[in-house]
Amino acid sequence: MKLVFLSLLGVAGLAKIVGGANGPDEERHSFNAARDISIGYVVFNGYAPLDLWGPLQILTTLSADYNMTLSIISKEAGPVSSSSPPHRMPNGEMMSTDHVINSTMLATHTPETAPPLNLLMIPGGLGNRNMGNDTWIEDFARARFNSTDYVASVCTGAMSLAKAGVLDGRRATTNKRAWSEVVQHGNNVTWVPNARWTHDGKVWTSSGVAAGMDMTYALLSWMYGSEKVNSTMNLIELAPHTDEHWDPYAVVHKVPGADTTRPMKDLVGPVGYD
Amino acid sequence: MKLVFLSLLGVAGLAKIVGGANGPDEERHSFNAARDISIGYVVFNGYAPLDLWGPLQILTTLSADYNMTLSIISKEAGPVSSSSPPHRMPNGEMMSTDHVINSTMLATHTPETAPPLNLLMIPGGLGNRNMGNDTWIEDFARARFNSTDYVASVCTGAMSLAKAGVLDGRRATTNKRAWSEVVQHGNNVTWVPNARWTHDGKVWTSSGVAAGMDMTYALLSWMYGSEKVNSTMNLIELAPHTDEHWDPYAVVHKVPGADTTRPMKDLVGPVGYD
Repeated sequence: MKLVFLSLLGVAGLAKIVGGANGPDEERHSFNAARDISIGYVVFNGYAPLDLWGPLQILTTLSADYNMTLSIISKEAGPVSSSSPPHRMPNGEMMSTDHVINSTMLATHTPETAPPLNLLMIPGGLGNRNMGNDTWIEDFARARFNSTDYVASVCTGAMSLAKAGVLDGRRATTNKRAWSEVVQHGNNVTWVPNARWTHDGKVWTSSGVAAGMDMTYALLSWMYGSEKVNSTMNLIELAPHTDEHWDPYAVVHKVPGADTTRPMKDLVGPVGYD
Repeated sequence: MKLVFLSLLGVAGLAKIVGGANGPDEERHSFNAARDISIGYVVFNGYAPLDLWGPLQILTTLSADYNMTLSIISKEAGPVSSSSPPHRMPNGEMMSTDHVINSTMLATHTPETAPPLNLLMIPGGLGNRNMGNDTWIEDFARARFNSTDYVASVCTGAMSLAKAGVLDGRRATTNKRAWSEVVQHGNNVTWVPNARWTHDGKVWTSSGVAAGMDMTYALLSWMYGSEKVNSTMNLIELAPHTDEHWDPYAVVHKVPGADTTRPMKDLVGPVGYD
């Protein structure tokens, strides 16, 4: 009888009952540990390498313990470069990155071929701020938002989410150097200047580049609990910042509202050790 | 007259005179800032993503300030996966990583087509510990060692350098979980159990995965001085550990000789701010 009941509800209904994205901690941890997690990582020319591969290192290592699948999603499947085409900056200047070294990864899926997703990850970089009239990232984020359990942005990836309208009425943060450029987007978004990352319902956003790893640690601990996530972090010798309010870069980059009264330094070490 | 003199000496002679890899700090910084740096990053199936893309994010961002070129070097140019084929572990067990998610990058060069290199980077992962009789990484490192100004390994990349013989008579460190497997290799290598990274002449080695970013920060500061390197780190919001002796992971993974008397935590923040 229970099985029939759950079957009628479908996976989305089941998630609501037993934890899903926002239920009590233990139920959410068990629920996620027992299911397959389909991850979609968006990528585009001009992505910031660590925006992807910081979180992806944590996810890759943790996938030895939990069932995950990964789709790397771009407008077209195939090679995607960290180099951005020449483009006009918000101040009107033309910017060329021809002199910057670059490297290339392979996208496995397009928006059309990507499977249903539980976790959608959106990185940043120069590329998503320089797409002209091409709105494929925003369109994809908007189209998938309701069917996804967790949506996370790294760095200026928050600009794509803001443009998609999915940050409306929510708290979010972003890269601190690109702050003024990003926060013009979205309606009724509460942009948090002092945040290594934010968590508001199903939406997680991180500050610039390296902050994505700290957010990913917090998100995965939220999804699965800390035991195996901590082991994973200690295996890759990555000591995450665990205070979401620690944000010296708001001060360094003079973000309006930056809190200059907090210590600039943090105390980090292996997770699970006091 | 000076030009003729320098021309006769060639670049290698010039490097010895004005700083090169090991001269006085200011001369080395000016020398490196004024020249093109050719970087070769080795990659192989089964690489650990962050072993590459942590250092590569720092190098990519810093290449806006200094002239660099990048070659991604593999046995064959083209797609290289972070997934490792099934293989036998040192304890005799067969290990399959089929259940682990993976992602793919593109190699641009082979050992045969790679240009002259100033900086050679060797990452780790399961892949370089699982190559059977294929010694291309060691052969390449050995062949290029003398003509390279700086050689750096991340994680178990030190195993490739040890097998190549280029760590003989030097200090080195490696991934702390894979410690016992790696330190059997090399002759007369002083394996340092308590080290986030080591620096011995032209050779730099880091501890596991994430430690590569801290080593890269230290190496680039050594090469160029701290001003632009610090700006780069603050731009990508990456707060490096700057104490090379900070190594709680030697304790976590019970490495013989691990120093249990030091604090497990570190104090990190934006660089250039006290």
